[in-house]
Amino acid sequence: MQGHSETDHVMMARALRLAGRGAWTTKPNPMVGCVLAHGDEVVGEGWHQRQGGPHAEVFALQAAGERARGATAYVTLEPCAHTGRTGPCADALVAAGVSRVVAAMRDPFPQVDGSGFERLRAAGIEVKYGLMEAAAQALNRGYVSRVVRGRPWLRVKLAMSLDGHTALASGESKWISGEASRRDVMRWRARAGALLTGSGTVMADDPQLTVRLDDDADFVPPLRVVLDPGLATVARGRVREGDAPTLYVHAANAKPPRDFTSDRVAVPASGNALDLAAVMRVLAQRGINEVQVEAGATLAGAFMRAGLVDEVLLYMAPVLLGAQARPLFAGLDIHDMTQRMALRIEDIVSVGDDLRLRLVPAQSAGDAGPAG
Amino acid sequence: MQGHSETDHVMMARALRLAGRGAWTTKPNPMVGCVLAHGDEVVGEGWHQRQGGPHAEVFALQAAGERARGATAYVTLEPCAHTGRTGPCADALVAAGVSRVVAAMRDPFPQVDGSGFERLRAAGIEVKYGLMEAAAQALNRGYVSRVVRGRPWLRVKLAMSLDGHTALASGESKWISGEASRRDVMRWRARAGALLTGSGTVMADDPQLTVRLDDDADFVPPLRVVLDPGLATVARGRVREGDAPTLYVHAANAKPPRDFTSDRVAVPASGNALDLAAVMRVLAQRGINEVQVEAGATLAGAFMRAGLVDEVLLYMAPVLLGAQARPLFAGLDIHDMTQRMALRIEDIVSVGDDLRLRLVPAQSAGDAGPAG
Repeated sequence: MQGHSETDHVMMARALRLAGRGAWTTKPNPMVGCVLAHGDEVVGEGWHQRQGGPHAEVFALQAAGERARGATAYVTLEPCAHTGRTGPCADALVAAGVSRVVAAMRDPFPQVDGSGFERLRAAGIEVKYGLMEAAAQALNRGYVSRVVRGRPWLRVKLAMSLDGHTALASGESKWISGEASRRDVMRWRARAGALLTGSGTVMADDPQLTVRLDDDADFVPPLRVVLDPGLATVARGRVREGDAPTLYVHAANAKPPRDFTSDRVAVPASGNALDLAAVMRVLAQRGINEVQVEAGATLAGAFMRAGLVDEVLLYMAPVLLGAQARPLFAGLDIHDMTQRMALRIEDIVSVGDDLRLRLVPAQSAGDAGPAG
Repeated sequence: MQGHSETDHVMMARALRLAGRGAWTTKPNPMVGCVLAHGDEVVGEGWHQRQGGPHAEVFALQAAGERARGATAYVTLEPCAHTGRTGPCADALVAAGVSRVVAAMRDPFPQVDGSGFERLRAAGIEVKYGLMEAAAQALNRGYVSRVVRGRPWLRVKLAMSLDGHTALASGESKWISGEASRRDVMRWRARAGALLTGSGTVMADDPQLTVRLDDDADFVPPLRVVLDPGLATVARGRVREGDAPTLYVHAANAKPPRDFTSDRVAVPASGNALDLAAVMRVLAQRGINEVQVEAGATLAGAFMRAGLVDEVLLYMAPVLLGAQARPLFAGLDIHDMTQRMALRIEDIVSVGDDLRLRLVPAQSAGDAGPAG
């Protein structure tokens, strides 16, 4: 952006890093960071930690005290103008005498969406936004997706062999990827609002779908979502155990057992296939920003075919499983090269002996909105 | 190695770089580089360029002239002691009055194999070897493999989609990988002594299997090898066209057509499957250091199953082809996880929109001898 100094960039980068500290705990709220500075001197900073707790600006203003007067406030998201669980941050900035506000992005949430900036400007505060906006949009791609598109950001996690298989023909899939990859998956789970699987995976692999970390880092447990059209697996599965909530999504004609007490919701289905777009809308309505799909080739392929996949998190182990083993995505129905599905590699890292690739579907790379 | 100075390392690194310039032209000879120096001052250098031409030491001695006297000679391979197409380099170093020879590795070629060092020592020259040996062994992994193991270094080149497929079910395979990857393949072809394919690939894809470079860089055209048990494809195929020689390898009972004039050799076969170890021995006897296999899943899988693969050169395009598409390796017969074939990633680079992975089978990583 024109008119932003090097100091502005340094301060906003700092605010973005602060915001990121809330990745595991702010859901369904966006991550927000705030830095208050006089020139190069930081006088207060803070980040939003948890729904219902103070916003980033409040932490920063408390830290700055009287020194907030005349300061520039760097915020990664437009300050709120509405009274939610806390008072409007725009008013707090005005009251503290801040002289200038630099924001990375406008908050698309309908109750804000420019009104925070208006309120600041009305009080005579200089307001600019758009500094490091791509990074800010990427940070909150889940929140932005939910608010703007009415559906969560959808990440498909897969672990495959070098030759593109997720399991042997027998279904055996344990330990394709290494210990380091499995630890890495836990960190991606921690930032998800929901972990989604299918009834087939519940039957075959019986995953617990919880976040298990080596340290005692704080996180809000993701909702476990089981797509189970006929409610066939509700009496079994570790997915019902532990502290995290579980939601069964089923077809309207499914009959829950009499003693069924878990949370459930019906969505339209054709045959045995749930309407996946409807599933996503339901999850957005429940405040889910990011969904991580951990399922087999059938469900992963169905999400891909439905055009709902925003990101593929792919762990690749340097082993060969042979041509009879199970595929990465099933049902893609590709018959000639023009139908091939293109993706773009976002980044690659070594994780133990494995590689981790992050990819985005190339066709949706442009319209994904929050993509950085 | 103990006793090697920083200068020694710098000079040997220089000699290794020089040696590498011969990668496309010295075959079947090893690549060799030589630097003559007084302390930090280089007084002559050279590299072996082509079979029948002067050895690296001769070029370096010519460049140094009288200044060779009292110099240290850094050579990436033990100087030869036998009279081949040129006189023994060990004698030339002695005659020039070199006072010290530092070699990266012993030459395993039976007519050298320590006798070069002996001849130098007998003339009162101080000799050390083992400096940067791993790099020198890796540089000439093909030559070392041929001499020590009696078979070429075998590299399997594959291009696959993200989901591990090399072609659609229809066989359509063109343009899985991008233009940059195809250019990169040409550079790997240029260093190969032979490019090997199967009759199935000749029928389906009709590759030319020649080296086509953007510039006019010099290279010795690799021998094109077609595994064709029944000599069924000898009347067709671009693999017979162009300047490079072509060798058909067939079963003993195959009947060549009356007008068949191409080079051919019979190896043992069981059924329609040639004895791949015998194929490799034949190629070693013909002075092939490095073989690059460019074939379909069946042949690639057969080499892998036979334990003959030293290196996998894998181009991965970020596209999905779907579960019906053709596999990377066929016939691996893996039924439980203990049978999975482990590889180790040697390096990964971006090539255009694709990734290029170089992998080595993990079980043979230890015994591969020349691995760096």
